[in-house]
Amino acid sequence: MSRPDDGDGNGWPDLAGRLLVDDKGRCHVLPIRVYFEDTDFSGLVYHGSYVRWCERGRSDFLRLIGSDHRALLEGAAGREPAAFVVRRMTLEFLRPARIDDVLEVRTRVKETTAATLTLDQRISHGGRDIFTAEVMVVLVSQSGKPLRLSSALRDALHARPS
Amino acid sequence: MSRPDDGDGNGWPDLAGRLLVDDKGRCHVLPIRVYFEDTDFSGLVYHGSYVRWCERGRSDFLRLIGSDHRALLEGAAGREPAAFVVRRMTLEFLRPARIDDVLEVRTRVKETTAATLTLDQRISHGGRDIFTAEVMVVLVSQSGKPLRLSSALRDALHARPS
Amino acid sequence: MSRPDDGDGNGWPDLAGRLLVDDKGRCHVLPIRVYFEDTDFSGLVYHGSYVRWCERGRSDFLRLIGSDHRALLEGAAGREPAAFVVRRMTLEFLRPARIDDVLEVRTRVKETTAATLTLDQRISHGGRDIFTAEVMVVLVSQSGKPLRLSSALRDALHARPS
Amino acid sequence: MSRPDDGDGNGWPDLAGRLLVDDKGRCHVLPIRVYFEDTDFSGLVYHGSYVRWCERGRSDFLRLIGSDHRALLEGAAGREPAAFVVRRMTLEFLRPARIDDVLEVRTRVKETTAATLTLDQRISHGGRDIFTAEVMVVLVSQSGKPLRLSSALRDALHARPS
Repeated sequence: MSRPDDGDGNGWPDLAGRLLVDDKGRCHVLPIRVYFEDTDFSGLVYHGSYVRWCERGRSDFLRLIGSDHRALLEGAAGREPAAFVVRRMTLEFLRPARIDDVLEVRTRVKETTAATLTLDQRISHGGRDIFTAEVMVVLVSQSGKPLRLSSALRDALHARPS
Repeated sequence: MSRPDDGDGNGWPDLAGRLLVDDKGRCHVLPIRVYFEDTDFSGLVYHGSYVRWCERGRSDFLRLIGSDHRALLEGAAGREPAAFVVRRMTLEFLRPARIDDVLEVRTRVKETTAATLTLDQRISHGGRDIFTAEVMVVLVSQSGKPLRLSSALRDALHARPS
Repeated sequence: MSRPDDGDGNGWPDLAGRLLVDDKGRCHVLPIRVYFEDTDFSGLVYHGSYVRWCERGRSDFLRLIGSDHRALLEGAAGREPAAFVVRRMTLEFLRPARIDDVLEVRTRVKETTAATLTLDQRISHGGRDIFTAEVMVVLVSQSGKPLRLSSALRDALHARPS
Repeated sequence: MSRPDDGDGNGWPDLAGRLLVDDKGRCHVLPIRVYFEDTDFSGLVYHGSYVRWCERGRSDFLRLIGSDHRALLEGAAGREPAAFVVRRMTLEFLRPARIDDVLEVRTRVKETTAATLTLDQRISHGGRDIFTAEVMVVLVSQSGKPLRLSSALRDALHARPS
């Protein structure tokens, strides 16, 4: 039997991870498989791979609360096209990961201001953190101007999953 | 509720895709989300991303038939550690893909010889092929010597999913 | 002493490689250092890295004959903005490469038609080919329409270095 | 005329950048060209690319003071094989960069302890910083044990270029 492929991922339920509540509160969790492309000659995961994985976690978190890149880029009614841009990252590499491992990226909102969103992201293996990141992003219009986060977006960022 | 994370992906059923039978026969299908990292300044997917996605498809196909990288690298009883290495690729880029798209990588065995495995891989969006690849890989020992594919591996490559 | 940095690379003479004539005729050569990011857990260069390196070779070849990406994207007088897009690649992986190696990418024109450009690219280490590629690219307008190569571009592609 | 290719980069004088002294003291500078692979659909450089570029700067800085990856991995007399591993990074993204830009990565030693090396890295375009990083690395043996930096390496890290 062939599965339906609607180009929107509806046949793959967990593809964008899940919104859930864990012991630190509400968060988004995304599973990551370690592939060849993520490792380096040391035999371990390349440090830059964690940065890519955090971006996937942020994108899917925003997607599940209703705000994907294309929607932002095309602009909502009365608003300029926009994209989130990383302003600052603090990264701690705690333990190594290896080919074939399955990791989880957990993303939660740490703080929002009028124009910035700060996220706490951690990557775990077997329930144990191997990497943590604090990431500040800003919403920027296509002409490069920082934009205020809409109240709808701020509400969605802080809502609990139903 | 927090999900279990056993470091092996068991809490995420489709993480390695699925073995299935479609109208061209038996294949492995892996969903792919297009993220920031996969695109370039043209606004479309970077051509090198398709090469990384095909490798994910091959790895998960081998994983689901029982042969992951770590098992190969650690060697089976009486066999040297080994890894699959790409020898030849023919790639056709048919249509573009974009940020947030969900694509599917379909991988099927085209041919095996004593020492080579040739795969037919295609990537589709909404049921329509956007990319095709023919990929020949060989199994190589850590000392660089080509190895024969074991009969167990060849059987698994040609078996139909149950 | 601090070097001048004009943002255009003028202080770094070989940054875009060189146009030269070797025993197979006219070509562009670009040196590549193998870094962490280019390797994988096998200890060797990741196969997808060669695809990225070929793209660097093509970009710098076009740059040195006067046609960089930004010029194409901004469009010339009376022409739409455009970009080169890869249509087809045939890749052969002959020998492995390793961290810290210095490789050379040689790019030469194999064939041009009204709308396509086919390049022969090979990567060598210590004078010995380790990888070859045949790459067909097409010039596409921002609206997705294939464009004819201008006669100025075709002349430049076929000119011998002075 | 064809250039010599000895597999070691000797025909390409600036390939590993330069050690020099600027107004903030001694540093290593490496030029970087922005290619397709470094950009994303926003039209700008992907934020993860800066992390890769910093690693290139660190590798070439260590190379020019006499300590490349392969030497570390193969171990010196009486020492285990080892590799530098990133422990912590603090990254600030100040201004965007674009396709075809030429950037410079400047790397200088901020601090060394018995087992850690902290580097100040900044990336500029046209003489203006667009990105800064503070990066702490540790030397780790293949068995995963942190190693003391040798006095020869510490001397080399702090020496002024001749």
